[in-house]
Amino acid sequence: MASNDAAKEELKGKSVPVLDHGQIALLDVMGSDEEIAEAARVSYRKGTKQVNDDRGLIRRLLRHRHTTPFEMAELKFYMKLPIFVERQCIRHRMASTNEVSARYSVLPEEYYIPEASAVCVQSKTNKQGREEEIDATSAAIYRQSTNDASHRAFEVYNSNLRNDVSREIARIPLPLGTYTEKYWKIDLHNLMHFLGLRMDAHAQWEIRQYANIMGSMVAKLFPITWQAFEDFRLNAMSLSALDIKQINRLPGGKIAQVDLEKYLLSEWCNAPKNSERAEFIVKAIRLGLVEPSHALPAHEAHTSTSK
Amino acid sequence: MASNDAAKEELKGKSVPVLDHGQIALLDVMGSDEEIAEAARVSYRKGTKQVNDDRGLIRRLLRHRHTTPFEMAELKFYMKLPIFVERQCIRHRMASTNEVSARYSVLPEEYYIPEASAVCVQSKTNKQGREEEIDATSAAIYRQSTNDASHRAFEVYNSNLRNDVSREIARIPLPLGTYTEKYWKIDLHNLMHFLGLRMDAHAQWEIRQYANIMGSMVAKLFPITWQAFEDFRLNAMSLSALDIKQINRLPGGKIAQVDLEKYLLSEWCNAPKNSERAEFIVKAIRLGLVEPSHALPAHEAHTSTSK
Amino acid sequence: MASNDAAKEELKGKSVPVLDHGQIALLDVMGSDEEIAEAARVSYRKGTKQVNDDRGLIRRLLRHRHTTPFEMAELKFYMKLPIFVERQCIRHRMASTNEVSARYSVLPEEYYIPEASAVCVQSKTNKQGREEEIDATSAAIYRQSTNDASHRAFEVYNSNLRNDVSREIARIPLPLGTYTEKYWKIDLHNLMHFLGLRMDAHAQWEIRQYANIMGSMVAKLFPITWQAFEDFRLNAMSLSALDIKQINRLPGGKIAQVDLEKYLLSEWCNAPKNSERAEFIVKAIRLGLVEPSHALPAHEAHTSTSK
Amino acid sequence: MASNDAAKEELKGKSVPVLDHGQIALLDVMGSDEEIAEAARVSYRKGTKQVNDDRGLIRRLLRHRHTTPFEMAELKFYMKLPIFVERQCIRHRMASTNEVSARYSVLPEEYYIPEASAVCVQSKTNKQGREEEIDATSAAIYRQSTNDASHRAFEVYNSNLRNDVSREIARIPLPLGTYTEKYWKIDLHNLMHFLGLRMDAHAQWEIRQYANIMGSMVAKLFPITWQAFEDFRLNAMSLSALDIKQINRLPGGKIAQVDLEKYLLSEWCNAPKNSERAEFIVKAIRLGLVEPSHALPAHEAHTSTSK
Ligand SMILES: Cc1cc2nc3c(=O)[nH]c(=O)nc-3n(C[C@H](O)[C@H](O)[C@H](O)COP(=O)(O)OP(=O)(O)OC[C@H]3O[C@@H](n4cnc5c(N)ncnc54)[C@H](O)[C@@H]3O)c2cc1C
Ligand SMILES: Cc1cc2nc3c(=O)[nH]c(=O)nc-3n(C[C@H](O)[C@H](O)[C@H](O)COP(=O)(O)OP(=O)(O)OC[C@H]3O[C@@H](n4cnc5c(N)ncnc54)[C@H](O)[C@@H]3O)c2cc1C
Ligand SMILES: Cc1cc2nc3c(=O)[nH]c(=O)nc-3n(C[C@H](O)[C@H](O)[C@H](O)COP(=O)(O)OP(=O)(O)OC[C@H]3O[C@@H](n4cnc5c(N)ncnc54)[C@H](O)[C@@H]3O)c2cc1C
Ligand SMILES: Cc1cc2nc3c(=O)[nH]c(=O)nc-3n(C[C@H](O)[C@H](O)[C@H](O)COP(=O)(O)OP(=O)(O)OC[C@H]3O[C@@H](n4cnc5c(N)ncnc54)[C@H](O)[C@@H]3O)c2cc1C
Repeated sequence: MASNDAAKEELKGKSVPVLDHGQIALLDVMGSDEEIAEAARVSYRKGTKQVNDDRGLIRRLLRHRHTTPFEMAELKFYMKLPIFVERQCIRHRMASTNEVSARYSVLPEEYYIPEASAVCVQSKTNKQGREEEIDATSAAIYRQSTNDASHRAFEVYNSNLRNDVSREIARIPLPLGTYTEKYWKIDLHNLMHFLGLRMDAHAQWEIRQYANIMGSMVAKLFPITWQAFEDFRLNAMSLSALDIKQINRLPGGKIAQVDLEKYLLSEWCNAPKNSERAEFIVKAIRLGLVEPSHALPAHEAHTSTSK
Repeated sequence: MASNDAAKEELKGKSVPVLDHGQIALLDVMGSDEEIAEAARVSYRKGTKQVNDDRGLIRRLLRHRHTTPFEMAELKFYMKLPIFVERQCIRHRMASTNEVSARYSVLPEEYYIPEASAVCVQSKTNKQGREEEIDATSAAIYRQSTNDASHRAFEVYNSNLRNDVSREIARIPLPLGTYTEKYWKIDLHNLMHFLGLRMDAHAQWEIRQYANIMGSMVAKLFPITWQAFEDFRLNAMSLSALDIKQINRLPGGKIAQVDLEKYLLSEWCNAPKNSERAEFIVKAIRLGLVEPSHALPAHEAHTSTSK
Repeated sequence: MASNDAAKEELKGKSVPVLDHGQIALLDVMGSDEEIAEAARVSYRKGTKQVNDDRGLIRRLLRHRHTTPFEMAELKFYMKLPIFVERQCIRHRMASTNEVSARYSVLPEEYYIPEASAVCVQSKTNKQGREEEIDATSAAIYRQSTNDASHRAFEVYNSNLRNDVSREIARIPLPLGTYTEKYWKIDLHNLMHFLGLRMDAHAQWEIRQYANIMGSMVAKLFPITWQAFEDFRLNAMSLSALDIKQINRLPGGKIAQVDLEKYLLSEWCNAPKNSERAEFIVKAIRLGLVEPSHALPAHEAHTSTSK
Repeated sequence: MASNDAAKEELKGKSVPVLDHGQIALLDVMGSDEEIAEAARVSYRKGTKQVNDDRGLIRRLLRHRHTTPFEMAELKFYMKLPIFVERQCIRHRMASTNEVSARYSVLPEEYYIPEASAVCVQSKTNKQGREEEIDATSAAIYRQSTNDASHRAFEVYNSNLRNDVSREIARIPLPLGTYTEKYWKIDLHNLMHFLGLRMDAHAQWEIRQYANIMGSMVAKLFPITWQAFEDFRLNAMSLSALDIKQINRLPGGKIAQVDLEKYLLSEWCNAPKNSERAEFIVKAIRLGLVEPSHALPAHEAHTSTSK
């Protein structure tokens, strides 16, 4: 009897809807917080002073990058997701995948069209992302034309198939929004690495919807590990050697952002567009060392960089 | 001075065209046949009878699955390829990839349209493949309608971008035939594993075009290894325990396929559609043990299965 | 309810003794034959003619190197094993390990001394192995002196510890036969790769003892996969391109080994020590194509090479 | 012509001594800072505002965990190292290894005996490490007895070999300090991961000697990447969610360690042995937020945890 038997029972095999036609379901789990701790304890046989409690041990493992015990837990998912999201997911090589083959199988007409609220303008500061929502008319045009093109592509696909064109060739015009399905198995260490990158504000919104659901499942299945992951990864902050030097130069006491200039490291002093400097200011504000000035743009730096 | 310096000089940086708009170029290489042998020889220090010649050693390593010396050689490629081909390539996890990001970058209107000769009918026997060429009219229809749908998708994409829709969302209607670009680095052991699967007659024709070019580059850069790879993998044949039992039951002398029936293993006897039996017949013919009968369908079995 | 629930119940947590102080126990399993087949079937959605039965499907996956569905099953073991065996085991990188740390922990005085029957002479033909048992006196000397040196090393170790020397330094004289402990988790595809290499007659006898026990567990937990593994890997034979050419040159009918000479490929004709030629003869005998001549040494070729 | 051609020339093939009989030599390198940047730039084709300079780009890649471009560089080493160090090295699975086989080869009598200055007492606070040097007499005893036991083991080994015991069995009594040799190839991303863990003050002193030499080679070969690695990894500091909350609670201005107590988070308040609290104090001192009190033990926390 593992402590997470009830959570397993609750989650296994239940399909959770994602996006317009997507799904995610937990198919199987190996392990629990105590089994992670147990695997780690093989390291400490005789001669070690005291047995650690699971919580303290798991937190220390994650903090000190002793990551192999988290590989001892494994999760298997079923996912239905648009191809452009799958292309981001498959980049995580430390996982096992079985995907529907469009060489063997006929794909049904199912493609992703973002909700109007998810259609955003190209970000000015962050070259890879989207920013505020686009106006309603543009969103409607986007949705209509994307839908038309996708539907038209499926008409061509189906007509290709009727003409007995091989499936592998017939599918070439299909859109990147086409839904695909896969089984995906990954260990907990690598899943946390995935979630750290894909729940991040800089990951594409669509993959974040999948990552968030997986994250909430992990939180139920491995509550101690999840708390440690939140404390030491998701909500942690990394200070560079320069950041540390810079904090040591601050006068002490919360200073106003406008006054920061006089204490800046020489390498940042006359470089207002330096991204490391901008990221530092976001961090210093988050640490309560600097009082943000709303007239100043520095806190526009990517939030992911504030970690 | 490595023995393959001239081949490196000849190949490095030269772009080879593939498909209608694709390319492949060797960017860098580490290693040579002698360096593979040298790494293997670290295993045999003092106490071993004699130093092997490189050719004999490399052939033995490959034959006996001592594969780590081949990991000591590394190749880096630039590839421009349709997204549906990239999706097959990326499944090979033991490689490093940097791909153009359609979140950061605007994709030019370049998509793959197969030549008429590459548009084939769906295979009847092999669920995942294509078979003989389709008739000229159907091919022309295929090419025209696929082109129209792809072009239409790019019009929508470009109009999305003009409306300031974020790139990551704008690209959703783009076709699976859209060209992408990547840097791809892989060691020689894993490249041979890739080539073994992707030069195979059962791999999709399009990825085979890329694999064949890579293969010809490896043949120039690592001639001894390549010869061994051809002899022990590409042109080798695997006999199952049942195949071995079956060969032992044959009367000796080349027998006619029609007469084979009487010598068949009991598990294959009354199972004319059994795929292991069909694959056995293909192998026996290739070994010269059975004289094929053209009236009989057995040698329709997949050629890949004859290995 | 998976079909292998009873086998899991029977095996889980039971420790099996290995060598003089070793152990192996299955701690956890994810998956079953049907779940492997189910993951593979995600590939074949609509449009595929018929649902395959599990047995046929699993055999085809293994035969045609479609290996990812076997990655969907996972096994977790506890192992107690001599360090020199662990050093062979850890070479299999596609697995997760947590091992007792001799930096944190005090190692008990437990080291491996081979049974007299396992002490063999250095092989003449196979540079890496042992051959027939050594004579009783030499074996007794071996056992006594190895035991003395190992025991003496532990005395030094324990006296180091009493002198408060750090554990990580104190352990330096300990013998390679010292037992260590680990948790080891691996997926079924990579476990079969491990077993293919480590149940082989050329693997060191000691690691084979561990591999054989794991193999017998897999046979109970995944009976269909195991049967396929035996038929297509363990008991299969690989014929090289040269072997195939050679078989085609044979006259037909079982020929005597003495007569083989006249039919040999030119590259093998005057090369009696050529190992590919020697391995061919072993294979031809196993196929029933050649009648072995006990006067002739050819069948001395490594058995592993007869595959 | 890559910018690091001179550094390659200088380093390649030169053997550097390590420990008493060890060696390390760089055998080959693929890549340079500019080639890493070039691979990353494939991501940013048309549509991206401006080309980044290499330094800014490389620093951003490392900071934002976009690690695949660093996989495009590869290093191949020859290493001669004690077996207990090799056992730590081999745990890094994302590397390729060819090691001398003690099944094939006779090992010469070469084993590691630490210098007196490297023989330390078992750490009290850090269960896995050593602390201050041991007294001269104990060190001498350690060295003498370890040497005796190791030499005795080699005598047994050599006598085993003379008795024709197979090498794989003869080597069982050999000490963990025995030198082994290997070829080791790894990409720059995974090498930095290795160096981050093995140059750390908590890694065993012996492996740090190897890691430090590799680090100094990387610094010459990839100077921009190395600087970024120092700034964002080696000399960086990670603040947990609790650390951030705690810093926000500090009154501002450098406070004395004795006064810290009143501002502590409730979870740390009455837990003087809580390791997260102890690690926080070390970090706060390093940031110049807390004035250390030498009477107080808090800064005894592991230095590795101060990151
Ligand atoms: C915000 C963001 C932007 C990105 N932009 C781009 C982009 O523009 N272009 C692009 O191509 N990619 C981009 N990526 C993808 C990124 O480079 C990685 O492919 C992805 O994040 C997966 O990370 P990983 O390699 O650490 O994971 P995994 O592949 O799961 O690997 C985990 C770890 O295992 C090791 N590893 C696994 N396989 C190998 C192997 N074959 N060789 C060596 N080590 C291995 C490495 O240590 C690796 O860190 C982006 C990612 C993010 C999060
Ligand atoms: C003809 C054909 C048909 C196919 N049909 C389908 C299909 O319908 N659906 C589908 O999804 N795929 C299909 N595949 C893809 C196939 O399952 C593999 O993904 C692909 O062939 C890559 O092989 P690989 O995994 O051995 O290569 P790599 O990923 O390069 O791995 C090489 C080896 O490294 C090890 N390895 C690497 N990464 C991991 C990891 N994370 N965990 C465990 N071991 C690892 C394994 O031992 C593996 O064999 C097909 C492939 C072929 C050739
Ligand atoms: C009889 C025998 C003799 C041997 N003799 C020697 C010897 O003298 N010296 C010696 O050093 N070794 C020797 N080996 C060990 C051998 O080279 C392998 O290390 C071992 O068999 C593990 O195999 P593997 O690498 O395929 O397994 P895994 O490490 O589990 O890898 C499985 C597959 O995953 C992929 N893979 C995993 N990790 C990586 C990575 N980091 N980079 C690239 N691909 C990866 C590869 O495709 C690999 O085939 C011997 C092995 C055998 C069986
Ligand atoms: C100070 C310290 C103390 C340690 N103490 C112990 C101990 O007591 N006991 C012990 O057993 N180990 C211990 N270790 C070893 C540790 O657990 C790791 O094995 C080692 O640090 C290698 O790290 P890695 O796994 O990240 O590296 P690599 O194996 O090189 O892997 C790099 C990354 O690739 C991915 N990866 C590679 N292969 C696989 C795979 N097969 N499956 C899943 N993901 C994979 C992972 O994302 C991994 O993080 C200790 C290490 C350190 C630094």
